Amino acid sequence: MIKVLVVHGPNLNLLGVREPEKYGLLTLVEINDLIRSHAAESGVDVKIFQSNSEGAIIDAIQDARGSIDAIVINPGAYTHYSIAIRDAIAGVGIPAVEVHLSNVHAREEFRHKSVIAPVCAGQIAGFGAASYLLGLDAARSVVAARTEG
Amino acid sequence: MIKVLVVHGPNLNLLGVREPEKYGLLTLVEINDLIRSHAAESGVDVKIFQSNSEGAIIDAIQDARGSIDAIVINPGAYTHYSIAIRDAIAGVGIPAVEVHLSNVHAREEFRHKSVIAPVCAGQIAGFGAASYLLGLDAARSVVAARTEG
Amino acid sequence: MIKVLVVHGPNLNLLGVREPEKYGLLTLVEINDLIRSHAAESGVDVKIFQSNSEGAIIDAIQDARGSIDAIVINPGAYTHYSIAIRDAIAGVGIPAVEVHLSNVHAREEFRHKSVIAPVCAGQIAGFGAASYLLGLDAARSVVAARTEG
Amino acid sequence: MIKVLVVHGPNLNLLGVREPEKYGLLTLVEINDLIRSHAAESGVDVKIFQSNSEGAIIDAIQDARGSIDAIVINPGAYTHYSIAIRDAIAGVGIPAVEVHLSNVHAREEFRHKSVIAPVCAGQIAGFGAASYLLGLDAARSVVAARTEG
Amino acid sequence: MIKVLVVHGPNLNLLGVREPEKYGLLTLVEINDLIRSHAAESGVDVKIFQSNSEGAIIDAIQDARGSIDAIVINPGAYTHYSIAIRDAIAGVGIPAVEVHLSNVHAREEFRHKSVIAPVCAGQIAGFGAASYLLGLDAARSVVAARTEG
Amino acid sequence: MIKVLVVHGPNLNLLGVREPEKYGLLTLVEINDLIRSHAAESGVDVKIFQSNSEGAIIDAIQDARGSIDAIVINPGAYTHYSIAIRDAIAGVGIPAVEVHLSNVHAREEFRHKSVIAPVCAGQIAGFGAASYLLGLDAARSVVAARTEG
Amino acid sequence: MIKVLVVHGPNLNLLGVREPEKYGLLTLVEINDLIRSHAAESGVDVKIFQSNSEGAIIDAIQDARGSIDAIVINPGAYTHYSIAIRDAIAGVGIPAVEVHLSNVHAREEFRHKSVIAPVCAGQIAGFGAASYLLGLDAARSVVAARTEG
Amino acid sequence: MIKVLVVHGPNLNLLGVREPEKYGLLTLVEINDLIRSHAAESGVDVKIFQSNSEGAIIDAIQDARGSIDAIVINPGAYTHYSIAIRDAIAGVGIPAVEVHLSNVHAREEFRHKSVIAPVCAGQIAGFGAASYLLGLDAARSVVAARTEG
Amino acid sequence: MIKVLVVHGPNLNLLGVREPEKYGLLTLVEINDLIRSHAAESGVDVKIFQSNSEGAIIDAIQDARGSIDAIVINPGAYTHYSIAIRDAIAGVGIPAVEVHLSNVHAREEFRHKSVIAPVCAGQIAGFGAASYLLGLDAARSVVAARTEG
Amino acid sequence: MIKVLVVHGPNLNLLGVREPEKYGLLTLVEINDLIRSHAAESGVDVKIFQSNSEGAIIDAIQDARGSIDAIVINPGAYTHYSIAIRDAIAGVGIPAVEVHLSNVHAREEFRHKSVIAPVCAGQIAGFGAASYLLGLDAARSVVAARTEG
Amino acid sequence: MIKVLVVHGPNLNLLGVREPEKYGLLTLVEINDLIRSHAAESGVDVKIFQSNSEGAIIDAIQDARGSIDAIVINPGAYTHYSIAIRDAIAGVGIPAVEVHLSNVHAREEFRHKSVIAPVCAGQIAGFGAASYLLGLDAARSVVAARTEG
Amino acid sequence: MIKVLVVHGPNLNLLGVREPEKYGLLTLVEINDLIRSHAAESGVDVKIFQSNSEGAIIDAIQDARGSIDAIVINPGAYTHYSIAIRDAIAGVGIPAVEVHLSNVHAREEFRHKSVIAPVCAGQIAGFGAASYLLGLDAARSVVAARTEG
Repeated sequence: MIKVLVVHGPNLNLLGVREPEKYGLLTLVEINDLIRSHAAESGVDVKIFQSNSEGAIIDAIQDARGSIDAIVINPGAYTHYSIAIRDAIAGVGIPAVEVHLSNVHAREEFRHKSVIAPVCAGQIAGFGAASYLLGLDAARSVVAARTEG
Repeated sequence: MIKVLVVHGPNLNLLGVREPEKYGLLTLVEINDLIRSHAAESGVDVKIFQSNSEGAIIDAIQDARGSIDAIVINPGAYTHYSIAIRDAIAGVGIPAVEVHLSNVHAREEFRHKSVIAPVCAGQIAGFGAASYLLGLDAARSVVAARTEG
Repeated sequence: MIKVLVVHGPNLNLLGVREPEKYGLLTLVEINDLIRSHAAESGVDVKIFQSNSEGAIIDAIQDARGSIDAIVINPGAYTHYSIAIRDAIAGVGIPAVEVHLSNVHAREEFRHKSVIAPVCAGQIAGFGAASYLLGLDAARSVVAARTEG
Repeated sequence: MIKVLVVHGPNLNLLGVREPEKYGLLTLVEINDLIRSHAAESGVDVKIFQSNSEGAIIDAIQDARGSIDAIVINPGAYTHYSIAIRDAIAGVGIPAVEVHLSNVHAREEFRHKSVIAPVCAGQIAGFGAASYLLGLDAARSVVAARTEG
Repeated sequence: MIKVLVVHGPNLNLLGVREPEKYGLLTLVEINDLIRSHAAESGVDVKIFQSNSEGAIIDAIQDARGSIDAIVINPGAYTHYSIAIRDAIAGVGIPAVEVHLSNVHAREEFRHKSVIAPVCAGQIAGFGAASYLLGLDAARSVVAARTEG
Repeated sequence: MIKVLVVHGPNLNLLGVREPEKYGLLTLVEINDLIRSHAAESGVDVKIFQSNSEGAIIDAIQDARGSIDAIVINPGAYTHYSIAIRDAIAGVGIPAVEVHLSNVHAREEFRHKSVIAPVCAGQIAGFGAASYLLGLDAARSVVAARTEG
Repeated sequence: MIKVLVVHGPNLNLLGVREPEKYGLLTLVEINDLIRSHAAESGVDVKIFQSNSEGAIIDAIQDARGSIDAIVINPGAYTHYSIAIRDAIAGVGIPAVEVHLSNVHAREEFRHKSVIAPVCAGQIAGFGAASYLLGLDAARSVVAARTEG
Repeated sequence: MIKVLVVHGPNLNLLGVREPEKYGLLTLVEINDLIRSHAAESGVDVKIFQSNSEGAIIDAIQDARGSIDAIVINPGAYTHYSIAIRDAIAGVGIPAVEVHLSNVHAREEFRHKSVIAPVCAGQIAGFGAASYLLGLDAARSVVAARTEG
Repeated sequence: MIKVLVVHGPNLNLLGVREPEKYGLLTLVEINDLIRSHAAESGVDVKIFQSNSEGAIIDAIQDARGSIDAIVINPGAYTHYSIAIRDAIAGVGIPAVEVHLSNVHAREEFRHKSVIAPVCAGQIAGFGAASYLLGLDAARSVVAARTEG
Repeated sequence: MIKVLVVHGPNLNLLGVREPEKYGLLTLVEINDLIRSHAAESGVDVKIFQSNSEGAIIDAIQDARGSIDAIVINPGAYTHYSIAIRDAIAGVGIPAVEVHLSNVHAREEFRHKSVIAPVCAGQIAGFGAASYLLGLDAARSVVAARTEG
Repeated sequence: MIKVLVVHGPNLNLLGVREPEKYGLLTLVEINDLIRSHAAESGVDVKIFQSNSEGAIIDAIQDARGSIDAIVINPGAYTHYSIAIRDAIAGVGIPAVEVHLSNVHAREEFRHKSVIAPVCAGQIAGFGAASYLLGLDAARSVVAARTEG
Repeated sequence: MIKVLVVHGPNLNLLGVREPEKYGLLTLVEINDLIRSHAAESGVDVKIFQSNSEGAIIDAIQDARGSIDAIVINPGAYTHYSIAIRDAIAGVGIPAVEVHLSNVHAREEFRHKSVIAPVCAGQIAGFGAASYLLGLDAARSVVAARTEG
């Protein structure tokens, strides 16, 4: 059974409360329930973490070494400037999948670019809560490919 | 049963033959088999199209009006400059999911930007053939959300 | 009686069907009827061509040599990147008028720039179907000036 | 009978005197005669104004409120930097058509961009004195569309 | 009693008439009344000037030398390109406060930059008519600090 | 009585100690006293928070939901890159006023741009400690306008 | 005897007819004769293809797999934006030589950059019809070096 | 005896009063005396004009047609954005010399570029009041060369 | 005996574990031992701090006031965007030396620029663990120069 | 018999010694032998010059006036910034062919642009030592065309 | 009697021979005669130096220390990139006047910018050989001002 | 005993004479004495070279092949544009350390970028004469690491 760390970045704890036109109506608790259900169905052991702090997110990624097979991360606003989170992901060497609720490519120009995606296996954006579930599936696929490869 | 058109852009017919370090070892025929199997399992009626011609891809997207519920498109190199394909997708009003085999965000600078993604529901990149299967799942999710919403 | 080739670029065959807030309610058939009426009233022999294919548009422009006095062209999305269409117009040496239904200068940044306009006699944008009729009048004016000049 | 204000920007009073290779051989007086004839034929009540002063042009646009149905403006060099004229046109809410004698898109890079066109109904450039006449026709078309719409 | 010159730039005389979603419902006359009331309450002798002309605004700033302690200026569209007004303010050496009704930083990209603010004591933007009243208070504070300093 | 949260960003706890030519001679304690006095006179219930940590500032903004009517924030250096703080302010939906001690528009190029100001009601910069007091007044004005509006 | 595919891109079929000051006086038929003569003298088996269509050019490049040793391509205007042709050349793995009649580095800024050259063995530009002949020689040299290397 | 128009742009009437570290200690009256003396010694008939208004400067340049042999112009801040003054100089066809008191190339980045210099015979900057006297000599030289040439 | 604070930024606690081709084989513990040995030999009292948190690093820099003579800092990824750390260093007024294990100037474009180096005495990059030891020596030199100067 | 000057720019004397993966295994002496053989076979009188000094290369180009019919130049690194060599080539008016051993268009971004190519007849890059031989042939072709033309 | 060093940069020894439409018909010898005559008339002791080598020009500037009062330099193409010549001029502390025969501001974009002018007293461009004579006069004026100042 | 070549670029022979606020009070002779003392103490055989000529510096670097173990180079102004020196260092394959007296990262924008540093082992900037001594130590460290590695 593979182990996946799901990381929610800054302000994702506000989900479902404000700006539903951008991020949907589900709260983070509800999304986490969906993630846990999907993980259970898929035979994935999931661990979920949220923080508004860049440093705490880096700590969590580093702590994943040795116990986690893949990371699914929605870096929130840090997507666009946190080279430190990028370096953490590259540094721990755990395959990561970057996910976004909204289609970042259809929003403000500065949200098109991710400084983190280049060190991830891939990126999934635009499918609301389903982005996380697709991210779990993608993570499983990446881990399987590496195991086989 | 929802109907999905899968569009392969230019050079994807070369898959599995050359540059496997970038695009993987599977041929387009093998990928199409995976797509069909996954579609069948998911209760999706899938139609697959490939062309090296921008105009032919636009024609195919336009022809989808009235019979197709969602499009999964890997625009290949056209991703980065075909505003005409972008306008076709926006014009037909069918929800689309942009997919890429490789993680375009980790390649040459000019491959980071998609002129098509802003008019799609979202984008999935980096998971090899699995990007298409995730794309099908994403398409189903988008269609379901629109039907409910 | 001067002969004018009217070229409609990609996706213009979708007119009237989708996105009327951008492009108006008229279908391409209706616009072509307006063009033909206006041409008839103005003593212009008009030939109309539409294609989604860049290559086919170039072929049509090249074929105009010897039989056409002026071109009225709405290059659609190709306006912004088709240097090949630009070179075709410059190459055949037939005076051309670039027209747009919408005011491209008021839309996305990437639609402000035309790579084709520099080799045309001029550009007319923003007047809906009337842009074509003004384009015919402009073409007549350009041909008259060259004949006189 | 609709009322149209025609505004000539800076240096247009030099027309016909200098640089005919760029702007043609007609003087401003002769162009104004053409405008008045065309207006008369088209059933348009035309008022013509020229100034080299940005402030005076803004005053003229503001004064048009209440009595003018549409503006045809050749902002000359102000096209490229007068955000103040842009704001005046947007502020008075009268539909405007931007016209240019020369094809600005074929001249120096800095002449390609108009800061005023985004708040106009559209732009017509490149047809010499005929640009004004086409501008009048376009203005009529815009007013008609708004009246009907 | 300090003396403050309030300068309204181009198109501010249209206030309250058009585009209230951007600039509010108050007319310039009503805003001037608010300014005069607030000045009276604050023990400030206020002089108010409006012009659409860049040159006239420069003249007014130059004329302030010798009789005015501070300037509160809303340069309107000139904010973004009038280096001449910038030089006038720097040249007369009277402390100035730049104010804007709307939050220019939340509007079009080209409105974010002020060429005038660097030679002012500071900038206040986004509070409607209250921006002027805050500007008066800021001007008093700046004059007081210079007197003390 | 409206409730305002005043947020001081990174390094503002150094105020009055170093670089007085940039930020003035007052310590943060002295500025906070001025803020409290002004708030008391204005009938505002003020709460003050300082942190050098981006995550802690986001937490504080999120915690303001439900109890605070407006935020006055000097984001310090985070002004120029913290899209995460921007998203927090947009996410909680409490009107915010961005303030700066120095005139950021007159300093290094990279300090001219605020990524936070576009989601605030407005910005006040350049008046030393008075920027905070003007910020409180502006906040009151914004809250009053929203209550009335 | 090595086999070389010569590809002429868009508008090259107009050669000798128009704009001789840019492209020379020879027609494409005459240039093809020169190419065939030179190939015959050099012991090269040459196949020549021209199309205005990007897709058709990609098809032709793909079809070259298995039977062609080297490609000499003048991509015309596609030089500057057809990432799809670039990907085709990289994908088939046949060594290619990019040639141009005119010295593209001495023309408009946008013609300086080739998106195709980086995946070719090299580029030859500026020698009129001789560019093709030099290209054939270069192709022979590249094939010889790979055979030896 | 050649006739030269000397044009002083915005804020030059403040000379000698403020910012002497940038522009020197002489007043405009004193500089004009130097210009008149130098002109008299050089056998030049000089006419001097100053205005803060872009439109008035354009009017003055246009009025020079027919009576003036050369223009010496210090466009002040208009140097950097007044395409309208540029067009006026190009339009009247009188040779012009652009002069600046300060070395604009050693000041803020935005002062390095002149939009007017490209249509002048040349530019002289950095020599204080002497720039005008050198400008007169340069103007004489240009007129002499044209007369001879 | 001078006192030096050595600050290790984000992800430096991963040293020796991952990506040795970029950062070398030594662990942070081993590097710290080298630093302590070198400091002891050089008569420097060294204090070492590591954190992944930008805020914690700022706190540590601020706490250095009064007890530390110089800072040697490897800001890791924060080098490229933490204006807040820059302001902290400028704010405390302690001379600082920026060090990097790898030659940042030979890596990705975005790693070439340091927003922190401009407020440091200097920068040393590319010498692996030796960069820290050189940094200590440089710090001693800077402190000595300031003491003498 | 035409006379051609072959100029080798900086560091080309290192050829064959270092970095063969970029520049090939041949030494400059060996390349010069190839050049001489090819010249002899082609009936070209060849003169070869190498220098690491920009000034010496300019001197050599200037000295070619009167005795040389064409120049084949590999400007090495000077390709990318030596406007002085560009001006020398333009100044002597001898047709020149720019050659490069490696495909500069496939290397670092800064090697794509040549400041010298715009004043040459053309450019040949990417064929190792063969680039020089192709360059000789191209030079012959250019001289022949000018003689005929 | 002040002593002035006149420095001619690269390719100026070609003057009068080639490209007279850009640089005039006079040879460098003739220009030097004009310079010497004008210097003699003006009571200036002039020394003239020309080199195509950047290093030799730097040497000449350094050698001027102690014996030369001012430098008149036409850096030719080095104007646009020789930071080393810039540093030499700044380093020797002798006032310098940059001169150009042609109006560099009216030529290619890359010739508009001078990296040397910012450390000179000023720049004179566009007056042919007269630029040198005006440069001598300007140099005298600068030396006089420094002596008086 | 390792052998190190120290290269001083252009204008460093002026050290101690001018602009001590930028480069310090020591003359180059004094710095060279410090370098020789430090080398002697460190068991390094040092050879010192200075030139203002780019070509001469390249020659010196090339001559170092076979006899020198490492290069310490202060390229002066050539740091920012001499790709030729960059290629020389890369070409000879001797490890190099780039040093600067001043903190180039704190000076003009154009001094931040080094085109040479990417091919060096590392860069040291900002410590006055001590930069050279640190450079020697760094060079020893690099040579030791390569010997061991």
